[in-house]
Amino acid sequence: MSIIRQDLSTKDWTIFALERSKRPSDFKKVKENKAVKEYERNCPFCKGNEHMTPEDILTVKDGKQWLVRVVPNKFPALEPKGDCRYKINRHIIGPYLSIDGVGNHEVIIESPDHDDNLCNMELYQVERVMQVYRKRFIELSTNKDYQLIVIFRNHGRRAGTSLEHPHSQLVATPFVPGFIRGKLYESERYYDDFGKCVYCEMMAYEIKARKRVIFENKDFIAFAPYASVVPYNILILPKEHQACFAQVSENNVKYLASILRTVLRKLYYLLCDPDYNYIIDSTPIDQAGNRHYHWHLEILPRLSTRAGFEIGSGININTILPEKCAKFLRENNV
Amino acid sequence: MSIIRQDLSTKDWTIFALERSKRPSDFKKVKENKAVKEYERNCPFCKGNEHMTPEDILTVKDGKQWLVRVVPNKFPALEPKGDCRYKINRHIIGPYLSIDGVGNHEVIIESPDHDDNLCNMELYQVERVMQVYRKRFIELSTNKDYQLIVIFRNHGRRAGTSLEHPHSQLVATPFVPGFIRGKLYESERYYDDFGKCVYCEMMAYEIKARKRVIFENKDFIAFAPYASVVPYNILILPKEHQACFAQVSENNVKYLASILRTVLRKLYYLLCDPDYNYIIDSTPIDQAGNRHYHWHLEILPRLSTRAGFEIGSGININTILPEKCAKFLRENNV
Repeated sequence: MSIIRQDLSTKDWTIFALERSKRPSDFKKVKENKAVKEYERNCPFCKGNEHMTPEDILTVKDGKQWLVRVVPNKFPALEPKGDCRYKINRHIIGPYLSIDGVGNHEVIIESPDHDDNLCNMELYQVERVMQVYRKRFIELSTNKDYQLIVIFRNHGRRAGTSLEHPHSQLVATPFVPGFIRGKLYESERYYDDFGKCVYCEMMAYEIKARKRVIFENKDFIAFAPYASVVPYNILILPKEHQACFAQVSENNVKYLASILRTVLRKLYYLLCDPDYNYIIDSTPIDQAGNRHYHWHLEILPRLSTRAGFEIGSGININTILPEKCAKFLRENNV
Repeated sequence: MSIIRQDLSTKDWTIFALERSKRPSDFKKVKENKAVKEYERNCPFCKGNEHMTPEDILTVKDGKQWLVRVVPNKFPALEPKGDCRYKINRHIIGPYLSIDGVGNHEVIIESPDHDDNLCNMELYQVERVMQVYRKRFIELSTNKDYQLIVIFRNHGRRAGTSLEHPHSQLVATPFVPGFIRGKLYESERYYDDFGKCVYCEMMAYEIKARKRVIFENKDFIAFAPYASVVPYNILILPKEHQACFAQVSENNVKYLASILRTVLRKLYYLLCDPDYNYIIDSTPIDQAGNRHYHWHLEILPRLSTRAGFEIGSGININTILPEKCAKFLRENNV
């Protein structure tokens, strides 16, 4: 089991997951042999290699063939506690605090084919993946041990992927980190000051200003945020106020799949398949109905490197204005 | 001039420094030709190429030859305002806030030789560099336009360096970012609760526990923090309580140079010259005498990649315990 330690001076948490140092990586091979095949003998996520992963948590099938699989991460940052009577303990050693590394760490395998890519899949396959996100999020939300659920995707080596087979991940944590509390606090304050959700306000302004909008459909909008932290930083928000990803409906999810696919295709074709991370940033699960937070999917292309100044100050340095990025992505169809 | 924009939802700041996208990089060349020479024709920091940088702010000389130079960054994130009567303006556009990109961005060229390396320099040269840090920090501290001064060093490509000639940087900002306010708040709270500086407390515990200490001398201690955010994360702290780097004495600085050189040598020889960032994390300059904050130099080797989960949650995942890192560095002399 991992152990989660708190920094005494910052109150930030680090998960010590010692097994994760043993993770495999197929990237060396790929760099030598650029042609990616549909099946890779050593890839644990490929069709035919199902025995290489722990047992499925959820499987979407078409007849006998699976289309999307959810499996526990073989090298988990956090693990379920097994015995439900077991309490997640907090420990104090000297001045320090730690928590047992209980949680969930799942992999969502998005396709049986190694050479597939979320942005080049048919829309219905992307929809399946988003429906699986929703299902797992809602199911884990009922677990009283968990407080925050983070769904994310690491695409490409610079984004921290160890395996290139298309997949996303989900982590459920037994605590809310200060970073998230900070964001909640700011949106709460805005709500207290102005009586409105700050994300709804931003969205309304962006729709009016039209300078940073990239794409929109019935239920979602994608825009480059005013203070974009990196080049081509993109936010996708539900137009309706929803604090928690669990509030998204099955029907909403179709529009999410569609806008996400469109935006990722633009990145892929207009920026030559950049490495990126995306994250579904949602309110903690015990605050699903709150009025101040607004879940969103944030895309962070890895086109620049966070260096000493950014790390040490928390101030970002960006070399391109979001208006320019948005215009380029908006005006070029792929 | 850059523009500094605030994210409405998080209150975090991004500096838009559009000129920085034109920065040169000598790394491609270096990767092809591994043998680094004392002089590189195209390197703006090399002895003989002084005309390639803006004019010196400070020069340490030995006779006619310079040993350390401080010059304005040619592609600055922030620039001095020039006319001292000019006010640094804040602008509100729609719901958004921005500040004029006024500040200081300096480069500290640590040696006339391209192939030099901070950890392989003679101690007196490292001392010169640290004395220059101190001098520039103190001088800029008197400028009422500035609030935070960050000194940092990016070593290696993964750490975000564009030029490999040994150098550090200094940025003075006209505002205090939320990230720093957050740390100040936590240390303030600890002080209010326990009547002690949280960093002094950690240090006292680490000296007693002896598990995470790497090295110490008369005035400084280096240890791997309990909740290390990355493998081989190292903190160097002055043993005496000092909130602000400006409080360090000329004599203290000698011990800082010595411990820093020792620790960097250990990283270089024991971990094969890993890329790293280090940052001098200090209280804002108007709080130099406070009792709760404690300046420190933090080293962050770039041995792992921050991926979607870490970025989205602010929780770090580390795969090695600080006790193990500290033991390895402590017990092996180089």
